[in-house]
Amino acid sequence: MTVKKLEWIEAPTKKEKPDPNELIFGRMFTDHMFTMHYTEENGWHQPQVRPYEKISLDPASMIFHYGQSVFEGLKAYRSADNEILLFRPEENMKRMNRSNERMSIPSFNEEEMLEYIKQLIEIEKDWVPGEPGTSLYIRPFIIGTEPNLGVHPSHSYQLFVILSPVGSYYPEGINPVKIKVEKEYTRAAQGGTGMAKTGGNYSAGYNAQEKASNSGHAQVLWLDAVEKKYVEEVGSMNIFFKINGEVITPSLSGSILEGVTRKSIIELLQSWGVPVTERKITIDEVIESHREGKLEEAFGAGTAAVVSPIGAFTIDEAQYQVQDGETGELTKALYDTLTGIQTGTVKDHFNWVTEV
Amino acid sequence: MTVKKLEWIEAPTKKEKPDPNELIFGRMFTDHMFTMHYTEENGWHQPQVRPYEKISLDPASMIFHYGQSVFEGLKAYRSADNEILLFRPEENMKRMNRSNERMSIPSFNEEEMLEYIKQLIEIEKDWVPGEPGTSLYIRPFIIGTEPNLGVHPSHSYQLFVILSPVGSYYPEGINPVKIKVEKEYTRAAQGGTGMAKTGGNYSAGYNAQEKASNSGHAQVLWLDAVEKKYVEEVGSMNIFFKINGEVITPSLSGSILEGVTRKSIIELLQSWGVPVTERKITIDEVIESHREGKLEEAFGAGTAAVVSPIGAFTIDEAQYQVQDGETGELTKALYDTLTGIQTGTVKDHFNWVTEV
Ligand SMILES: Cc1ncc(COP(=O)(O)O)c(C=O)c1O
Ligand SMILES: Cc1ncc(COP(=O)(O)O)c(C=O)c1O
Repeated sequence: MTVKKLEWIEAPTKKEKPDPNELIFGRMFTDHMFTMHYTEENGWHQPQVRPYEKISLDPASMIFHYGQSVFEGLKAYRSADNEILLFRPEENMKRMNRSNERMSIPSFNEEEMLEYIKQLIEIEKDWVPGEPGTSLYIRPFIIGTEPNLGVHPSHSYQLFVILSPVGSYYPEGINPVKIKVEKEYTRAAQGGTGMAKTGGNYSAGYNAQEKASNSGHAQVLWLDAVEKKYVEEVGSMNIFFKINGEVITPSLSGSILEGVTRKSIIELLQSWGVPVTERKITIDEVIESHREGKLEEAFGAGTAAVVSPIGAFTIDEAQYQVQDGETGELTKALYDTLTGIQTGTVKDHFNWVTEV
Repeated sequence: MTVKKLEWIEAPTKKEKPDPNELIFGRMFTDHMFTMHYTEENGWHQPQVRPYEKISLDPASMIFHYGQSVFEGLKAYRSADNEILLFRPEENMKRMNRSNERMSIPSFNEEEMLEYIKQLIEIEKDWVPGEPGTSLYIRPFIIGTEPNLGVHPSHSYQLFVILSPVGSYYPEGINPVKIKVEKEYTRAAQGGTGMAKTGGNYSAGYNAQEKASNSGHAQVLWLDAVEKKYVEEVGSMNIFFKINGEVITPSLSGSILEGVTRKSIIELLQSWGVPVTERKITIDEVIESHREGKLEEAFGAGTAAVVSPIGAFTIDEAQYQVQDGETGELTKALYDTLTGIQTGTVKDHFNWVTEV
């Protein structure tokens, strides 16, 4: 597909690039952003790169009232050869359209959208940090902008892509965390919006996350909304267990976000000949496997941390340690391989990586 | 409580007031709005009435990404004596703080907030229409404004109150509607955000509402997320059934919004000596009572319509008519009494009404 070169309005002044060792996630943004508008008459139109600046919206805009929004999150990495690499970005475009469908937001052309993102990154290429573990975080999002308090889908939307240089998730090396099994709050239910990347899913989890943090836990482990026994996700990551040599991850139930990292891990494990299964798994089965000494590894998986080893679970008052609180061997191999592919140091047999 | 008079910035030009017979819900707004800011250092501060105008926000503002927001909806009515009346506004302030708690948003002083709203309405009093069925809709809302992509509560917020003159919900007289029992999508789950008035709950329902509209239904009847058998709400209203002389409404389960209209109807019925019960009720029980000829009336209850009679249910392919599709006697009496109290034509024994 050929998309014509985007017209763009250059920012009159440029910001100073931050110290790559002092990057904090999602707090600093580059000089430009991508924007596009939707109306019923014109569909998605007016794609444009323009200066990163405040946006001006009517206080009655639907996003402020009924939460009609979707977003994505992916990263651009600088390779040792100074190329800028994206990891399976077409998966994020597809997922964004799946989120759109769930949230009654009009879909966009995925190839075109990816091309716009590449052109934006090309313009902002000096913002892609090169230090180990760093990257340029890419945040596309869509909001309903019609000024109307009626409870129905917006008739107009704005799509943005903003970019933020981010530091290493593991400045002190990959490190297992303690997580808390949440029994009271739910993140998402069958028939709800859990499979979509929409704002409301995330703020709905703040209470539980706060409770977990206050008791010394890094993340919440979410159970299903119905029976409160099936494992769903951990924080904003998918979850994997290695039990007796087999890797298990909860199947996509409708309330779980289909992670790109999750998908890649499944494919990697298959290529390595490691048994990997997507199926329902109860928290009781996890505890039971721990009791029997068969719970070998556990980790979260997502774009932010890539792989986040789980060192211990807390359920009610009981605590269960995994791998003596150390990072498991397979967990480490997955982390090294994925980050290696993402940054071009490990051969990309899968054709996952796209150069900008 | 005495709150000092708000300072305000007058709009340089005033809009023309709309034709009261052509008001569309939530599309036109008055000349001024109320705003207040929250920061950790200063708490809620800088209360102000200022011209209704676009607001300017960083594209990284948390509201655009993680949906941290709450809102309320209440109405100001013009009485025959030209007073401006509010209906139990302190209940909306309380509920807004309950929503705040669920969404990890800092609470405000309820009395003070109500006083600000009254002062705003006083300034905009000429916008309160006086024709039968019309009112001035009041929409307070709070959004997380910190520019930060971290998944955690915002450290700064803005609170707004905007006002919109609204027409009669029933320009052609109160009229029973057909509703569809939703079996696939869920609105809210136990442990989720259903008891809070937060944006994400509403856009989550668009898909189901669309499906219902396409098959000729006015609203969706929501079942519980867990067993898909308990009745929860209808559209954005609470629901009531009259079965064999007894009025039944689902008990507040955590996934149901505690409506001010619901509460008032329960209190009214009690004062009338009509048996009224808050309890779990399955859709099967409703159908069964219909089969036995005992389902006498059914209606939704909320600020927008006050009372909305249900003329028929569709479940899968089966349709069940209530009261031959006519408005029930008790439904009508509740509607007349509530709207009468709201507009000052029926004596307010309960002290529900507050003059601005
Ligand atoms: C709820 C949730 N689950 C899982 C993931 C992991 O998805 P991915 O691997 O595509 O980053 C994310 C986010 O990135 C998420 O928000
Ligand atoms: C989901 C939901 N249920 C019920 C209601 C009814 O509440 P109230 O009577 O306070 O208007 C509302 C809104 O107003 C609502 O949004």
